[in-house]
Amino acid sequence: MDYKKALIRKISNKTAKVGIVGMGYVGMPLGELSAEAGFRTIGFVRDPKKKGAINAEKITNLTSTVDKKELKKVDIILICVQTPVFEDKMPDLRALKQACEEVSENLRPGQLVIIESSVAPGTTRKIVLPILRKSGLKLGEEFYLSFSPERVDPGNARFKLNKIPKVVSGAEPNSREAAVAFYSKIIDRVVPVSSVETAELVKIFENTFRLVNISLVNQVHQYAQAIGVDMWEVVDAASTKPFGFLPHYPGPGIGGHCIPVDPYYLLEDAKKNGINLTLVKEAGIINENQPHKVVHRAVEIISTNLKNGLIHSGHNHGIRLFSAILRFKNNPIFFKNPKKPKVLLIGVAYKPDIDDPRESPALKIWEIFEKMGYTVTYHDPYIPLFNGHQSLELSEKTVTQNDLLVITTNHSTIDYEWLIGLRKPILDTRNVLLSTQNTKSNIFGL
Amino acid sequence: MDYKKALIRKISNKTAKVGIVGMGYVGMPLGELSAEAGFRTIGFVRDPKKKGAINAEKITNLTSTVDKKELKKVDIILICVQTPVFEDKMPDLRALKQACEEVSENLRPGQLVIIESSVAPGTTRKIVLPILRKSGLKLGEEFYLSFSPERVDPGNARFKLNKIPKVVSGAEPNSREAAVAFYSKIIDRVVPVSSVETAELVKIFENTFRLVNISLVNQVHQYAQAIGVDMWEVVDAASTKPFGFLPHYPGPGIGGHCIPVDPYYLLEDAKKNGINLTLVKEAGIINENQPHKVVHRAVEIISTNLKNGLIHSGHNHGIRLFSAILRFKNNPIFFKNPKKPKVLLIGVAYKPDIDDPRESPALKIWEIFEKMGYTVTYHDPYIPLFNGHQSLELSEKTVTQNDLLVITTNHSTIDYEWLIGLRKPILDTRNVLLSTQNTKSNIFGL
Repeated sequence: MDYKKALIRKISNKTAKVGIVGMGYVGMPLGELSAEAGFRTIGFVRDPKKKGAINAEKITNLTSTVDKKELKKVDIILICVQTPVFEDKMPDLRALKQACEEVSENLRPGQLVIIESSVAPGTTRKIVLPILRKSGLKLGEEFYLSFSPERVDPGNARFKLNKIPKVVSGAEPNSREAAVAFYSKIIDRVVPVSSVETAELVKIFENTFRLVNISLVNQVHQYAQAIGVDMWEVVDAASTKPFGFLPHYPGPGIGGHCIPVDPYYLLEDAKKNGINLTLVKEAGIINENQPHKVVHRAVEIISTNLKNGLIHSGHNHGIRLFSAILRFKNNPIFFKNPKKPKVLLIGVAYKPDIDDPRESPALKIWEIFEKMGYTVTYHDPYIPLFNGHQSLELSEKTVTQNDLLVITTNHSTIDYEWLIGLRKPILDTRNVLLSTQNTKSNIFGL
Repeated sequence: MDYKKALIRKISNKTAKVGIVGMGYVGMPLGELSAEAGFRTIGFVRDPKKKGAINAEKITNLTSTVDKKELKKVDIILICVQTPVFEDKMPDLRALKQACEEVSENLRPGQLVIIESSVAPGTTRKIVLPILRKSGLKLGEEFYLSFSPERVDPGNARFKLNKIPKVVSGAEPNSREAAVAFYSKIIDRVVPVSSVETAELVKIFENTFRLVNISLVNQVHQYAQAIGVDMWEVVDAASTKPFGFLPHYPGPGIGGHCIPVDPYYLLEDAKKNGINLTLVKEAGIINENQPHKVVHRAVEIISTNLKNGLIHSGHNHGIRLFSAILRFKNNPIFFKNPKKPKVLLIGVAYKPDIDDPRESPALKIWEIFEKMGYTVTYHDPYIPLFNGHQSLELSEKTVTQNDLLVITTNHSTIDYEWLIGLRKPILDTRNVLLSTQNTKSNIFGL
């Protein structure tokens, strides 16, 4: 029997059933897109509550289940589980492997398995494929395997998922053909590439590009500060060049599940292949160090404030001393102060206007402050619970009892003008107070 | 007397005269633009031949002179001299300083001096200004000083000079006002920035961005080769992402007067300010190393060829061994070969379809080959003389007597199909043979 032909026919007349393993920020919108296109779609989750929540939404063609056995009933299985890194930055493929094992146990002839999770090049062929082969089925004849990286950009309203071109590969030609047929039904533009390794590298390279460029601007920002130049103004002016430039801005460090993670997958596999990606490694170090820079700057502001009893307008002027945490530890003015300094973090999501705090730089900033004996609280309109604490109301009372406010995420719903008016020193790591900078003495730049 | 008012009036009614010091790839098109806009423009050069050549062109409003005294006659002086680096990568400001000295000696009240040459932040204020002050005139009242970086992109037909937005600054507000008034008459969009240092950093940051990204792709390319993935395909597929990505491609190293130079100005000044720009430094090292990679690859191809008596199609397949030049030096097959290997470089300009070989990677590649005892010749339709040699005709005889052809620049006028047909091994460092790659056994990738 020609399973590929049968599968492509089912895709073509939309009788193919779609299963999504992992209904997070990638799987859920993909499931919705698939359902919207007319495919009966099942979201596979572990948590019965999550299943209930999805089913309660009553989306046409989309249901959820916790029953792995149902995997047998679908024709196309999209694996959208998390692929994070461990503390030591080594790839954590546990969720992916487990999902593959479950798929393999239920694999039946004619199924197409697609990996959407970001992985190091070689993972689909060397890790996923051997697990699926345990089913006893034959790749390219009885089942098909594809890698097609997700390009979801949470909070990006400009690009709907079906408008973002999709890179699609196959472990062999039949797999690619089937995967291209499927994505062509739900995405406006499909970009077939020659191998799964190519597609794997595309995704990781996209995010490595981001990491390197954000680290570059953060590093040059230090120099700009030293010479009294506003790096945001530099980037904005450079952006007027109509070719050869793409703006990235300084900040407290990159969060999320992709940019701070994917480059470590790349680094690790390159190392295995004898290639030392020095530029990527250095970019990672710079990014890891950004939260420390934020804290140093905060300590500097509070320290100056305590010493002088007033706030100097230091935004973009003078020399910023980020050199070593030690100099602050030895600062007698700072440590003679008997009360614990209080810091309020404003925004703990990893980017503006989303409710996702994972891999957020705010978490690291919090930890560093705590280690130094600071009292940390936070406000985030989207995240009621964070780091074991509750989000505080942004009332005058809450704000004014702090020594410093740190804008860690630039949510658009915060009333910044009101905040500035409370006359508390604000460390603006996102340049969100741009329009008022240099005119108010209580605003400090990164 | 209000010199600024008078100058702006002259700019407004186009009676202001413009002087351009240095009529190279920046000064010449700028002079043409100024003349075309209706300003009487004088190009100041050293070489009477150059003067003769410019005057022979009989461009309306544009003449050239070698007489520095004529500087007194113009109202606006644009300094467009070269700012290269010495062998040790330290900034070479000799041409700029000399131009400023000459301008200073002839400075008269009411003149506006604009620096267009790329320099490290601080140069306009700390080096140029003191020289001009030797005239005894007062900045902001008797003369005006601006920095506005050139954004000329040689060979880029897509963007005419007047269509490229121009970043403009002033050493003080009057200077900026006058400079903005002038550029507004010749450029469609002027982008005023808050200080000369900001404008200086904009230009250098733009080129540092390019260096870092090209070095990144060259480094990841090594990894891609190791795992058998085509980096050009990866970059092309990544370019389909509609946000957050800008394509840069692998190559033999970056040439020209900006990208390989400007980052060293930045590095040097950052160092003076106590900032170690590790990412930029690493990018510089990678770029410096690219010509060595090209030669290693060439040696590998020739060596395999000699050993096997035939050419393996190695493009994008298998493991590339760039590890150390030593392994080739110790390769008995290679060194037992009694005749000196012959290499023909095709294209020695630093980018396609231009006649400029300065800072070209081809020169370094040539030098490395020569040190290894290779016989090197070249063909470039735009450059008749290079490295003390004449460009060879691209005849069958010339081509076939070589052991390897290296495409160092992808000029569009070369008949690549014909070249491939001669069955000589070709190392394509620019991926210009893309359409035929993998189908011809004599084509090798970088």
